[in-house]
Amino acid sequence: MLENFKSYLNTQWGLPNDAIEELCNGIKTKKVVKEEFLLKSGEVCDLTIFVEKGLLRMYALNEKGKIDILQFAPENWLVSDRGSVYFNEPSNYYIDAIESTTVVLLDQNFIDRISRLGPSFRKLNDRLLHNHIRHLNKRVSLLLGASAETRYLNFIKLYPDILLRVPQWMVASYLGIAPESLSRVRRDLAKNNFRPG
Amino acid sequence: MLENFKSYLNTQWGLPNDAIEELCNGIKTKKVVKEEFLLKSGEVCDLTIFVEKGLLRMYALNEKGKIDILQFAPENWLVSDRGSVYFNEPSNYYIDAIESTTVVLLDQNFIDRISRLGPSFRKLNDRLLHNHIRHLNKRVSLLLGASAETRYLNFIKLYPDILLRVPQWMVASYLGIAPESLSRVRRDLAKNNFRPG
Repeated sequence: MLENFKSYLNTQWGLPNDAIEELCNGIKTKKVVKEEFLLKSGEVCDLTIFVEKGLLRMYALNEKGKIDILQFAPENWLVSDRGSVYFNEPSNYYIDAIESTTVVLLDQNFIDRISRLGPSFRKLNDRLLHNHIRHLNKRVSLLLGASAETRYLNFIKLYPDILLRVPQWMVASYLGIAPESLSRVRRDLAKNNFRPG
Repeated sequence: MLENFKSYLNTQWGLPNDAIEELCNGIKTKKVVKEEFLLKSGEVCDLTIFVEKGLLRMYALNEKGKIDILQFAPENWLVSDRGSVYFNEPSNYYIDAIESTTVVLLDQNFIDRISRLGPSFRKLNDRLLHNHIRHLNKRVSLLLGASAETRYLNFIKLYPDILLRVPQWMVASYLGIAPESLSRVRRDLAKNNFRPG
């Protein structure tokens, strides 16, 4: 149970095994089925979600009613609307399941408990925030100026494990390109014997 | 001297006047002329810049050698490559001056000094990080799915004071649209008697 989460606490947060066991005692987990929501636009997001097994996505509905995918969250990823959590304001985003997924729910109670274990949580959280900003700046700069091929190659590097798990239209949505452009890029790369991973 | 910065310290960080005077004693400021750089791609960014007077931009050079503007920083804005500062790694971005600009340089020395004044700095920094993430998520979702007009209207709201201070191609670069699309949007809005601000 919670193998990925425990390993994450150990490798990323540097927690020893006994602290991890104690922390995981009474932790909130949830199984969501495909297409089930963990957050809907208009709700205040009050937790951070760790993906133990499965695959989630965070998306916005644009003015044409179409889905724009901001983030995928496969195993060992965290996903949350940080702004909504912090500023206690309604979210503009949705988080739902692309596959049947087991998640660990990191709510305020969990954060209080882990904070008492020492200063490592604050340090890690700081690192996560900066990493998020670094990632989002790169995402903005790719959306502003990169070719469809460059965007796709970056996607493969960031999400090496999910290419076969999501339909092409979702990848195109994440990349901000038309599905036909994605098909063309993949065809061109295949011609040149490119193999992802 | 440093009127904007002092007022920022007072209103945003809740510092009393005597603490502000002490803090500003020996603080590093700099005057940069138009087109002068404060950061170049490949350098490690080791400070956060507060704009006292003037206008900066942060941009990336894309694979076609074109400028993609990630951020403008007029008076009272902070600008920095947070990822480069935190992870001590070379930046992919440039920061330079669109106008002659007076900046306050918030380096590690400043942060050490302000941290000693109490816990408010940590709290404010946390707030700035979350606000940055909220802003960047919105920016990604606008770039993925919003019309040129929606992007432009959001721009005016975010940067009400700089419309007349930057050439149109820079606004288009920030918005990720062609300059012709921006002209069309502005023409259409003018027809409908739209007045920014």
